[in-house]
Amino acid sequence: MLVRTLKGEATAQVPIWLMRQAGRYLPEYRALREKTGSFLDLCYSPEQAAEATLQPIRRFDLDAAILFSDILVVPDAMGQPVRFAPGEGPVLEALADRVSIDALITDRVESHLAPVYEAARLVRAALPEAIALIGFAGAPWTVATYMIEGGSSRDFARTKGWAARDPEGFDALLAKIEAATLRHLLAQVRAGAQVLQLFDSWAGVLDEAFFERLVIGPTKRLVAGVKAEAPDVPIVGFPKGCGILYARYAAETGVDAVSLDPAVPLDWAASALQPHVAVQGNLDPILLLIGGEAMARRSGQILAALAGGPFVFNLGHGVVPPTPPEHVAELISLVRKATGT
Amino acid sequence: MLVRTLKGEATAQVPIWLMRQAGRYLPEYRALREKTGSFLDLCYSPEQAAEATLQPIRRFDLDAAILFSDILVVPDAMGQPVRFAPGEGPVLEALADRVSIDALITDRVESHLAPVYEAARLVRAALPEAIALIGFAGAPWTVATYMIEGGSSRDFARTKGWAARDPEGFDALLAKIEAATLRHLLAQVRAGAQVLQLFDSWAGVLDEAFFERLVIGPTKRLVAGVKAEAPDVPIVGFPKGCGILYARYAAETGVDAVSLDPAVPLDWAASALQPHVAVQGNLDPILLLIGGEAMARRSGQILAALAGGPFVFNLGHGVVPPTPPEHVAELISLVRKATGT
Repeated sequence: MLVRTLKGEATAQVPIWLMRQAGRYLPEYRALREKTGSFLDLCYSPEQAAEATLQPIRRFDLDAAILFSDILVVPDAMGQPVRFAPGEGPVLEALADRVSIDALITDRVESHLAPVYEAARLVRAALPEAIALIGFAGAPWTVATYMIEGGSSRDFARTKGWAARDPEGFDALLAKIEAATLRHLLAQVRAGAQVLQLFDSWAGVLDEAFFERLVIGPTKRLVAGVKAEAPDVPIVGFPKGCGILYARYAAETGVDAVSLDPAVPLDWAASALQPHVAVQGNLDPILLLIGGEAMARRSGQILAALAGGPFVFNLGHGVVPPTPPEHVAELISLVRKATGT
Repeated sequence: MLVRTLKGEATAQVPIWLMRQAGRYLPEYRALREKTGSFLDLCYSPEQAAEATLQPIRRFDLDAAILFSDILVVPDAMGQPVRFAPGEGPVLEALADRVSIDALITDRVESHLAPVYEAARLVRAALPEAIALIGFAGAPWTVATYMIEGGSSRDFARTKGWAARDPEGFDALLAKIEAATLRHLLAQVRAGAQVLQLFDSWAGVLDEAFFERLVIGPTKRLVAGVKAEAPDVPIVGFPKGCGILYARYAAETGVDAVSLDPAVPLDWAASALQPHVAVQGNLDPILLLIGGEAMARRSGQILAALAGGPFVFNLGHGVVPPTPPEHVAELISLVRKATGT
């Protein structure tokens, strides 16, 4: 059902899945996590990554599983090692110059990330046919920020500075990320992924000129690359926080669907985006944390505004760790009831 | 000139000022800062706050000075003390319950913040007549987040949770912040401020239902309160990061102008906002940091798109500390040349 909706059908039922539906808010995930080494060890252990992926599916009536992994496995596979320091987020040795860009390797994605694809195969084999498997990657701009800043950033000064001062070098970096990401996405499809999502978490910090060059351009090329090899796999783009620029993103990148952050007004999404692409979103994860009447009211507004066109119910970004799992069950039940299934 | 532009005239010249034009990027500010105690001590020392306000005016050909202060002087005046811990931002003892809201005082703004108004008087007396003095405050939603979270926040879970679970208590808090902020804004006007700006730095994390209730409602009431007493003082609203919701903010709050963050596309601002309000913005501060061709190109695009209507050149948010002061001079010169003055 998810695949059909993302291809533009207004299906009778509204499919639902949640970003970060696997993870720390689930006690069984925390138990699994205690038995593994680092976060990256978990991503690279096929059985355990498959288990983490399947945990929410066992508990909840969801329409999709999203492979348990991370957007930074791509730089890791390119020879820029990533580690996840507890409490401080991802840490990479920041790219310093053109030499460090030239040193990046794009052709060992399939070997370095073989355990990720094995996890996908295990998940696909264990999933009921009606539940879709979603593969994903970071979009090139967002991945580039981590590679250049060496982790999270407040203002992305180094990345924007590099893009402005050395456009050739920066384009070379984007081209390498695109090449590695294309391989990563296609390998996930071969391993059983039926839908792909591109996370562009930092798309919202760019002005339109940068957005066109650093978000729309690379995304369009990447989508074209996937479509050339896997034309039937719908692609969801998530240029989080980009506001009015969602319209250009939806019109120009070639994605089948856009995932909306909570700040996107529903009526605008219905009139400006949904005629062109399927939409997915956009309940504030804090309303899922709160639950009850506040969650029910806003979910009802979302369904009323968007369920008339191709629409996938989701959050506006990921489940937060203190979320009570019962709220997830309640939300799914609300969506099922409201759409008569 | 700034005042006339903000009231909707397309003046022959484009006025320019920069958010955080006073501050750490200036060596004379760092020297001043070394001689004072805490950041708040500086805000509460009339001569020194006036000096910090005037420093960029001495160096640069700017059209306005913005009073050197902070949005959190309002909770401080309400009896919720604020301190600025070096490197970790503002720290407050978070509001815990209705009792802590009831304990907030709104009628000692003028006495507690007397040094701030004295600073404004000193600045106004020292400024050439052609240079406008801008007063400011945080908008109620943004100030409420600091008061409830006890500082900066990643996801505003406590604040949104309170707003959802206890709407009456939250409305009581907003009403108190509105009352104190109105007094603070009017006292700045009496002390010489000719323009007011409302900073709603966290407006972009809200869905439309929350935005209507927590941003539009309080801003509209506050603007009406100011207009009742000081109808000639233009008010600029800055609901940073709110994307498509800028349109409702511009149409419904009663502000004379909106300040745009860098992600707002220029053509959209010209067609959707500028017919209704003056606009201000929106060069990415990182382009000011970078300077040179990248800064010049984007500034040219901004002027080409917006200088035909009522427009104030500014950044999309504040000057960042590593910015070379020469880039500020260069930017001002670019804007002056491009608009034939």
